[in-house]
Amino acid sequence: MREDVRDAVNRVDDNRLWRRHMEMAQIGAIPGNGVNRAALSDEDIAARKLLISWARARDFAVSVDGIGNLFVRRAGQDAAAPPVMTGSHMDSQPRGGRFDGIYGVLAGLEALEAIDAAGVETQRPIELVAWTNEEGGRFPPCTMGSAVYTGARKLEDFLEVKDNDGVVLKGALAKTLAATPDAGKRAFGAPAAAYIEAHIEQGPRLELEKKTIGVVTGIQGLRWFNIEVLGETAHAGTTPLNLRKDALREAVAIINALHELTRDESDTLRFTVGRMLVTPNSPNSVASQVLFSVDLRHPDLATIDRLGKTVEPTAEKAARHCQVKVTPTLHDDPCVFDSRVVDTIEKWTRELKLPCIRLPSGASHDAMYMARVCPAGMIFVPCEKGISHNEAENARPEDLAAGARVLTAALLDLANC
Amino acid sequence: MREDVRDAVNRVDDNRLWRRHMEMAQIGAIPGNGVNRAALSDEDIAARKLLISWARARDFAVSVDGIGNLFVRRAGQDAAAPPVMTGSHMDSQPRGGRFDGIYGVLAGLEALEAIDAAGVETQRPIELVAWTNEEGGRFPPCTMGSAVYTGARKLEDFLEVKDNDGVVLKGALAKTLAATPDAGKRAFGAPAAAYIEAHIEQGPRLELEKKTIGVVTGIQGLRWFNIEVLGETAHAGTTPLNLRKDALREAVAIINALHELTRDESDTLRFTVGRMLVTPNSPNSVASQVLFSVDLRHPDLATIDRLGKTVEPTAEKAARHCQVKVTPTLHDDPCVFDSRVVDTIEKWTRELKLPCIRLPSGASHDAMYMARVCPAGMIFVPCEKGISHNEAENARPEDLAAGARVLTAALLDLANC
Repeated sequence: MREDVRDAVNRVDDNRLWRRHMEMAQIGAIPGNGVNRAALSDEDIAARKLLISWARARDFAVSVDGIGNLFVRRAGQDAAAPPVMTGSHMDSQPRGGRFDGIYGVLAGLEALEAIDAAGVETQRPIELVAWTNEEGGRFPPCTMGSAVYTGARKLEDFLEVKDNDGVVLKGALAKTLAATPDAGKRAFGAPAAAYIEAHIEQGPRLELEKKTIGVVTGIQGLRWFNIEVLGETAHAGTTPLNLRKDALREAVAIINALHELTRDESDTLRFTVGRMLVTPNSPNSVASQVLFSVDLRHPDLATIDRLGKTVEPTAEKAARHCQVKVTPTLHDDPCVFDSRVVDTIEKWTRELKLPCIRLPSGASHDAMYMARVCPAGMIFVPCEKGISHNEAENARPEDLAAGARVLTAALLDLANC
Repeated sequence: MREDVRDAVNRVDDNRLWRRHMEMAQIGAIPGNGVNRAALSDEDIAARKLLISWARARDFAVSVDGIGNLFVRRAGQDAAAPPVMTGSHMDSQPRGGRFDGIYGVLAGLEALEAIDAAGVETQRPIELVAWTNEEGGRFPPCTMGSAVYTGARKLEDFLEVKDNDGVVLKGALAKTLAATPDAGKRAFGAPAAAYIEAHIEQGPRLELEKKTIGVVTGIQGLRWFNIEVLGETAHAGTTPLNLRKDALREAVAIINALHELTRDESDTLRFTVGRMLVTPNSPNSVASQVLFSVDLRHPDLATIDRLGKTVEPTAEKAARHCQVKVTPTLHDDPCVFDSRVVDTIEKWTRELKLPCIRLPSGASHDAMYMARVCPAGMIFVPCEKGISHNEAENARPEDLAAGARVLTAALLDLANC
């Protein structure tokens, strides 16, 4: 193994990496070892401050862009060269775990620190990024920060998005930006030489096949929709059913039709209604309005495209007395990662003698947007029983550290070419 | 017509009654002429204070019981005689109208004032009551105040009920009681000679048949349930459907089964799912928990009883991977009003030459609980298109006043026998 890589990899500190996960997990801790750290919340702000404090202790430069994506940079010899980037997100699902997202941020910081401690100079800068609002659990849709950074979406498209309590994103974002006034300001979309994201697998394969590293080949395609059913409220005791415009009853009919549409014997297709808001939400008032989310995913472009296009007509056909409004909120075609990045990750995994497989990602990640603007790839590490988006999410310190070592080596490699 | 009755009836003031409706409608006003005055909210407190100020202006005695039921009493010659009571409620649905409930309170106050202004002495006291939390829109179940007052339910059963924001009833009740410290304290369940409740019809019959007064013969039976579906949250992108315990998917399956169970060609049966709370309520997290309400009503005892008993086994059979917990929250058999009260109401309606019909009530009312402890009845007045539990709820000043005149006459009659 190259000496500079070996020196840096040896500086990866299993204990420090684990300790930082536990420290971050206290911010937004919920019962059962879970984490509720919503994007642009007070907890998100606290996590940002903690990350900045660690970055500043090493004299890494800290900057932030207009959607709150937070950057930590270790300088390279060529200050003008596009950096090699790594990162993930610090926000969590409402009932999320201690590793989803935050692992990629802390593994990236660990890599920067290990390289720095080893005194290794790189030609390119290496830059860690904590993307804003990857989960979309509070402010839909997900992967918002990277979508805006890479120019796939405009910031203006999201400023008026409301959370379930009616809080507008614009205000929450302003509050978050104001909380870290010392971070340098930067524009969206500076060129990058490459991007690698480390993440827990969120699926069962690595654990089942007893592999430490997943070399990720791409990400399945995704379609998100908000479906609004507009009826009319009425008294539940007096109004005959045939005179009602019951938005909840029709929402159920639409969901039934979507279940039919998405039936898949192979169990490859993912269909989820995870969010539903009912108005006025009172037991003895017929619902006047229901808003629910649709999350549809498939690795095959033709399939996801066909199904995505069928959601709106299916919903409209299933509604009888209510109006239906279908709004696409996310549209991501399947992504295939750059072979040079994938090969680099696999090469260093093998040099480090870590058992690995190549696999696609079931979940979306910020790497999907970065793959549109630079060569990108991902490193997966196992998580217990494949569980994530759940308080029970768990991972082993040695697997997290192994992933950080592969990341350190791959970043160094890419930062010098 | 008896002279004392004629004197009192003539004192009913159409304008004052309408003006008070409009004044009350400003407390919790929402767009579209609607009202959102949740039980035990700041708006409820404001409505109580306004009612008390009107009562005090006439020197009527004001008292309150342990669940916040508010009483306004005009003394009778025999202070020890059980009073004749009238009243309704001041809380509204989240998107309710300007007449549901508040009409019965203001018509009762109008009757008391008219009798007082006419200087008519009655043997029995006449007492107006504003029942706490009739709607159950914030704190299920409905008709809570009258259920506790009449001993049908215990106050302790409701103290821990939470609203959709997690506010506990106990705290909201304490705040409400503290807001009217000058009201005398009274126990639950003092004997009553009779109870008459005035209310808008909340159905289309009076308007369609061009009648001013509905002489109500009884109230259909009702069963309420909370159904909780307990699954497991998981990542919407990575978790195969056959490994999920998707609480929302199974809630939909249960609702489908309940729709089958409650299919009724005659459209007599009322079945409503009006409230649904999803956890964690995030588009890319499989729902771990869904709570939804079931509201089931039918005028026939055998039918409502049979269906009510079938809800739990139907829900359990429809669930496949999730646990289901069915909690009955309200159980009211059909009620038949006392013939003497019904006849008295009809007699005075005819004396006042108002067109009327006898009809049953589709909605539940506090009169249902009062009918268990004393002779009870109700007076309906028309509302526009039968719409209620909706901002569009509307009624005509002259119909409201006509109902108040019938109420005044009937209360006077019953207060002297």
